Amino acid sequence: MAEPQLARQAALVEHLIGSNLDGLLVCSLPNVRYLTGFSGSNALFFLTPTESWFFTDFRYAAQVADEVVGASHVVIETASLWKGLWAQLSTRPGTAAFGFESAHLLHRDFQRLLEDGARWTWRPTCDFVEGLRARKEPREVESIRLAGVIATSALERTLAEVRVGMSENEVAGVLERSLRDAGSDGFPFGTIAASGPRSALPHARAGSRPIARGDFLLLDFGAVFQGYCADVTRTVVVGKASGQQRDVYAAVQEANERARTQVRPGMTGREADALARELLEARGFGEAFGHGLGHGLGLEVHEAPRLSRIADGKLPDGAVVTIEPGVYLPGWGGVRIEDDVHLRASGAELLTDFPRDLIELA
Amino acid sequence: MAEPQLARQAALVEHLIGSNLDGLLVCSLPNVRYLTGFSGSNALFFLTPTESWFFTDFRYAAQVADEVVGASHVVIETASLWKGLWAQLSTRPGTAAFGFESAHLLHRDFQRLLEDGARWTWRPTCDFVEGLRARKEPREVESIRLAGVIATSALERTLAEVRVGMSENEVAGVLERSLRDAGSDGFPFGTIAASGPRSALPHARAGSRPIARGDFLLLDFGAVFQGYCADVTRTVVVGKASGQQRDVYAAVQEANERARTQVRPGMTGREADALARELLEARGFGEAFGHGLGHGLGLEVHEAPRLSRIADGKLPDGAVVTIEPGVYLPGWGGVRIEDDVHLRASGAELLTDFPRDLIELA
Repeated sequence: MAEPQLARQAALVEHLIGSNLDGLLVCSLPNVRYLTGFSGSNALFFLTPTESWFFTDFRYAAQVADEVVGASHVVIETASLWKGLWAQLSTRPGTAAFGFESAHLLHRDFQRLLEDGARWTWRPTCDFVEGLRARKEPREVESIRLAGVIATSALERTLAEVRVGMSENEVAGVLERSLRDAGSDGFPFGTIAASGPRSALPHARAGSRPIARGDFLLLDFGAVFQGYCADVTRTVVVGKASGQQRDVYAAVQEANERARTQVRPGMTGREADALARELLEARGFGEAFGHGLGHGLGLEVHEAPRLSRIADGKLPDGAVVTIEPGVYLPGWGGVRIEDDVHLRASGAELLTDFPRDLIELA
Repeated sequence: MAEPQLARQAALVEHLIGSNLDGLLVCSLPNVRYLTGFSGSNALFFLTPTESWFFTDFRYAAQVADEVVGASHVVIETASLWKGLWAQLSTRPGTAAFGFESAHLLHRDFQRLLEDGARWTWRPTCDFVEGLRARKEPREVESIRLAGVIATSALERTLAEVRVGMSENEVAGVLERSLRDAGSDGFPFGTIAASGPRSALPHARAGSRPIARGDFLLLDFGAVFQGYCADVTRTVVVGKASGQQRDVYAAVQEANERARTQVRPGMTGREADALARELLEARGFGEAFGHGLGHGLGLEVHEAPRLSRIADGKLPDGAVVTIEPGVYLPGWGGVRIEDDVHLRASGAELLTDFPRDLIELA
């Protein structure tokens, strides 16, 4: 079977030709990984219809040989990758027009294009590679599904160990070790473990707060498998749930269920968001759902497309997205229930399998 | 005692006035944190000599009240922070010249300055805040020292659990849980756990490889305390060390010792790097030490100053830097020994206390 990177590069070249560009400078590392397979932390990739150049530094010399696919030239630099770029491009004609990634190139590096690359025309591009990445190949979906299995099995082991009096940091430690033991290649973002009133902070990192009886415990965390991320949230009660906890939880659970089963490719991000938002508004929680419904998932834990009140774009067939409605009542607490789904014309395929009914830990 | 953020903002304002700037747009999140105390993941800060504006989104509304110091205006946006910026700046005179952070602003956002901010003059700035951050305040050094205590105590617990046959991922899991239990607020970078020949890859993430008897095991990891990072590496032998392992280890240990005790503020980064490099070259390992000696450490795990063959800048009095010489022999293995030191005129003060003699795990 051909390497997927070659087909991705071919699709990108078609896009370049259609945009009258003679080449594209790719500086986003996830985009470089998608196109070449390279998983390190320092690289540039320059693609033309006939040749391509991959640049990295000494630390990754051995890794390049194992990983990089479809680069006609590999350049290992000891100092700046940019020096290598200018040396390699020196024979290109001054009539050439090259694209660069406007959403990833820093102003400092943009100045390099205007100075060291002044011979050529440079045009900002947007979402050339991200557009390809948004439609997942079957093998990518499979990697995300396996990351989801790692995530949910680690969650199951963790909930069995949670006790009143443990700190959020200790719970995060149990969860992260369980993720490692289950095969996760690290963590795509800082684990959120928020208890009691802190569960009302949608992005609270784990802290030193000890868990009290009757607290909500919100766990939002990820796993990585073969470079692909899963992103899962569950909220449980440590002890017996109160009536208000049950009511808030039920509303979020319904919103998760409705959006998760009814989301389809071809909807706009706003229409998808509305599936959950309308239901929460009807329950009186519209104001308390202050973030968007979800986001694309893949090599990055936040990527295209977006699902929110301000997302006009259509959801591509084949995208993998999170569905994560939440209700946050400042000073009291919050609930979020997050799953990952694969959008297909026939329906939304669930990639994260873990109970959604309210769990009360003994 | 006054909040340190106020003194930092005052120092920055002096810098602005000296540079004939009427304001600075700060978009780097670690810089925003240094100036305001905000630890979230989405913010802009705009500072003028008389007023300042802090912008973030809904998710952080509660966190802002707890954390943000020294902002005359706090703006919580539901959509784009940039919209809020333009609304707040609308009354500023068109004669104003504002700075922006060239090394942190994306080209996409630079275009916003040229379009939505076209009324004003925008000038690229470099290292305005980073220059302040490079000289640590006593309380910052203390936070890094405590992060170092967390890191080394977690390492001690982890080494007691390492056994032949465990995978690198399992070792990373033990280490990360020990870090959490010791009080680390997450991990400043992906844990490196590299065994056997993989220890020759300077930036190998932990993987599925099982540890064999006689392997080198290189652990490079960090801890975070009150936002400040420690960064530590130790390399051990799982079993009995061979003669070659002892020789390579001894050379790296000497290089660590020499650089760690002789580095001083006022040296250039290149001179500091040479302390270790000359010794490794004399042992025949010059080529095998392919990266720089170290880097600054603080709110970020890589920050100013740099210590390497190409670092011309002088090391500031008060900087905290890593000292991490290494020798990597492809296909065989590698050794790195990394400590954190505080540079003072009176000498380099060691912040990470853990044995450096070769450890052979039974």
